[in-house]
Amino acid sequence: MAIRDTLDVVGGKWKLVLISVLTGQGAKKFNELSRDAEISPRMLSKELQELETNNLVRRTVCNTKPVTVEYSLTDYCRTLQELIEVMHNWGINHRKKMISEK
Amino acid sequence: MAIRDTLDVVGGKWKLVLISVLTGQGAKKFNELSRDAEISPRMLSKELQELETNNLVRRTVCNTKPVTVEYSLTDYCRTLQELIEVMHNWGINHRKKMISEK
Repeated sequence: MAIRDTLDVVGGKWKLVLISVLTGQGAKKFNELSRDAEISPRMLSKELQELETNNLVRRTVCNTKPVTVEYSLTDYCRTLQELIEVMHNWGINHRKKMISEK
Repeated sequence: MAIRDTLDVVGGKWKLVLISVLTGQGAKKFNELSRDAEISPRMLSKELQELETNNLVRRTVCNTKPVTVEYSLTDYCRTLQELIEVMHNWGINHRKKMISEK
């Protein structure tokens, strides 16, 4: 089932949130990602590892002192933009509906 | 974050799979859903309960002997159709890419 293939790659609580945080942002450092996505460093490490394995996130070691590591979206990850937008829009409309029903 | 609102409602391993199985199918009995989505009865009960709470699935008790219970998508759930299609299409393309890279 094709939906299951998608969920295998970007399912779970964090992956689409991380991709959304990185969308249109260029690269972000580990701590920036942890802060902006409100995710623990331990969980972030695991999720970034899986996103890298699936060629959705690129890890870049910058030749700074001290060395810094940045994360950015790969070109392949851009194929998820439509999914991110549709989920974003549904979430906005769902929240409006919930508020209007209170 | 709007994506998080969406994931709160349809995130996890099963909800979008169940909605996809019910899409264009009218109503299905519990055992049919368990078989078609390849989900355990225990997990299916939990997921259906949450989908009902969020007004995405309707539970109908049929006046048959013995009594039968059917599940179908609510009108509100149809607002998720675009998301289902985009996820379905991405999964198909992702699988093609994986196969072509082997």
